[in-house]
Amino acid sequence: MKYYISKTIKTDFDQAVQRITESLKNEGFGILTEINLHEKLKEKLNVDFRKYKILGACNPSFAYKALQLEDKIGTMLPCSIVVQEFENHEIEIAAVDPLASMMAIGNVDMIEIAIEIKEKLARAVSAI
Amino acid sequence: MKYYISKTIKTDFDQAVQRITESLKNEGFGILTEINLHEKLKEKLNVDFRKYKILGACNPSFAYKALQLEDKIGTMLPCSIVVQEFENHEIEIAAVDPLASMMAIGNVDMIEIAIEIKEKLARAVSAI
Repeated sequence: MKYYISKTIKTDFDQAVQRITESLKNEGFGILTEINLHEKLKEKLNVDFRKYKILGACNPSFAYKALQLEDKIGTMLPCSIVVQEFENHEIEIAAVDPLASMMAIGNVDMIEIAIEIKEKLARAVSAI
Repeated sequence: MKYYISKTIKTDFDQAVQRITESLKNEGFGILTEINLHEKLKEKLNVDFRKYKILGACNPSFAYKALQLEDKIGTMLPCSIVVQEFENHEIEIAAVDPLASMMAIGNVDMIEIAIEIKEKLARAVSAI
């Protein structure tokens, strides 16, 4: 099973981060966290890894609905979006597929919310 | 299937955040992100929700190993740890079970890493 929704574009890395941020905003997601894994791996392990950021996206209305159903759903939040740079300025953007990550949760109402969130994330990725 | 590893303790909320942060540090995890959902839901939806934080924990060596196997594993990172306050100063701490969230990933080597991370998270939660 595929656990992400992705798209590859040719652009500048920072531009790509800005574009997916705006695209997510149009679907009601704010970026609450950002991890620069490229820097973190250099700092902690002294390894040279490609440009790689993890953005933590959250749609407050959906998060609130989900919390009413599952009070520990925060362990599956925020939705992580990877932006990574391959050769020739090819930037891949991949959002977690919440249906895949939440499949262990045996709660039908929660799955309905996950489907809605997946649709929004898919539209955001597709629109960049 | 249970998708989290949890423990309830009686203490002050901030103390609980500090205790799980130290406990995770002893297992090699740093806290890279923190979301104050209580504040965020007040700000965005004007609702009063209990004290609820989501800590984003990452063990750099394991993250690096996982990235060699699955370049989009960042969509499942960092590991989220919820700290929430119920009545009478009962604080529940719940870490995501990476085996549950990563079950959609059909990669045996990745599952082995997820098992090791799960053991570390379980020890961190148990030690608080």
